[in-house]
Amino acid sequence: MNRQELVNLIKEKQSYLCVGLDTDMQKIPKHLLSHADPVFAFNKAIIDATKDLCVAYKINTAFYECMGIRGWESLQRTVEYIPSGIFTIADAKRGDIGNTSTQYAKTFFDTYKFDSVTVAPYMGKDSVLPFLQFPEKWTILLGLTSNEGSQDFQLQQAGDELLFERVMKTAMEWGTPDNLMFVVGATQSAQLGYIRKMVPDHFFLVPGVGAQGGSLQDISTQAMNKDCGLLVNVSRGIIYAGNGEDFATDARNAALQYQQEMATYLNQTTVSL
Amino acid sequence: MNRQELVNLIKEKQSYLCVGLDTDMQKIPKHLLSHADPVFAFNKAIIDATKDLCVAYKINTAFYECMGIRGWESLQRTVEYIPSGIFTIADAKRGDIGNTSTQYAKTFFDTYKFDSVTVAPYMGKDSVLPFLQFPEKWTILLGLTSNEGSQDFQLQQAGDELLFERVMKTAMEWGTPDNLMFVVGATQSAQLGYIRKMVPDHFFLVPGVGAQGGSLQDISTQAMNKDCGLLVNVSRGIIYAGNGEDFATDARNAALQYQQEMATYLNQTTVSL
Repeated sequence: MNRQELVNLIKEKQSYLCVGLDTDMQKIPKHLLSHADPVFAFNKAIIDATKDLCVAYKINTAFYECMGIRGWESLQRTVEYIPSGIFTIADAKRGDIGNTSTQYAKTFFDTYKFDSVTVAPYMGKDSVLPFLQFPEKWTILLGLTSNEGSQDFQLQQAGDELLFERVMKTAMEWGTPDNLMFVVGATQSAQLGYIRKMVPDHFFLVPGVGAQGGSLQDISTQAMNKDCGLLVNVSRGIIYAGNGEDFATDARNAALQYQQEMATYLNQTTVSL
Repeated sequence: MNRQELVNLIKEKQSYLCVGLDTDMQKIPKHLLSHADPVFAFNKAIIDATKDLCVAYKINTAFYECMGIRGWESLQRTVEYIPSGIFTIADAKRGDIGNTSTQYAKTFFDTYKFDSVTVAPYMGKDSVLPFLQFPEKWTILLGLTSNEGSQDFQLQQAGDELLFERVMKTAMEWGTPDNLMFVVGATQSAQLGYIRKMVPDHFFLVPGVGAQGGSLQDISTQAMNKDCGLLVNVSRGIIYAGNGEDFATDARNAALQYQQEMATYLNQTTVSL
């Protein structure tokens, strides 16, 4: 999916919601456990209930990998079930030397047909470039993450700036707003406005709303750009909104609340949307 | 495998060689392609030919992931085939927020039963600690990597030190020499002696010898400690030493050369080995 298609999708749906499918066998409703593939049964119900309200699904690969081969089967069924026209994110945080990153890029772009993959920056340019070579695919590089550990390195001084600034500024020379996004955590509210000034055009994938405590209002008012420029992810706050037979309805209601709030922020902007 | 067992293994085999199974369907001998699982057939032959010469096997997960589910089947067969008593490394470069890192740790330590996994440090303490919670398992954190991209961030100033120094010093407060190793690239010869002084006790996993141009002599003379403290990985230089029917013999001969050179360096040290 290219940038214009993504922007159009946001405009049509009045939503920049990404639903995070961090599906955990321990947390899904008990009645699903009798299914041949309980994780897919859960994801299918969540997708059916939310697909008109969100513009993206993010699959956190760790939750699938830990189940071994049947986890990858659930992942593959899930990504194939997501309707075409909805943006797909492999939240995999990969990155290695060039020839290995090429294999990871093939994994998520060719084998599983995701639109995008999250990538870790520590190994530098040649670990990121292979992901950027795929036309109409997206690299989503870690900038400033939502977790407490972002204090350890990302928010430390690196020359005359902070490390996450250096990472984001440097990576802007490797990719363009048409193939590179950044992860910017919603919990980093003190930095959001500054980051948007530094990176005016790129999309941000924003985790940390909901269970991690980040504010949708903060991120929307401080970091929206003329193309919206945001994909705000909610995982646990939507997919585990309920835990009974009607879990999908509960998920839909949670997603609807986010979408309606998002429509408000989109309409408050004076921009192309 | 605990530290003493690993040190004993190095002493018995007079080797600190790790064979990297970066097995690529495009590069294995053509006659293997008729096997039901060519990647496993290749790995099995390599393991049979080298298991008395090395102390570890490193599986680069990217090369398996890119083949989808059958790649994970090849990976599982391979790790199960590696003789017990040889150290196993999942070279996966994972790392995410705490609850996700826990899933990755379960993936490699519980589901696939690896002794160790490589971890990326960018997301900080809570992304690394979950891996350190598993008894007799090892976290191998990226310190200073072997690739050109190490210049971009790792070798840049971070306060009054370089970023990789900050990462390694900080992580030494999170783990111990009994559960934490560091990746230090063999191509970083200017830094090896300095890094060993800074980190006297931890094991280093050293990639970059062979195809990437690092010198076994440099790393051995500059970074060996009283317990050896090194696992030197060679991937392409061993597994693709030959490409015909007798590829396993060629791999063995390449591994034997490394092992014999390593025995020399071990015998030159005046230490407990």
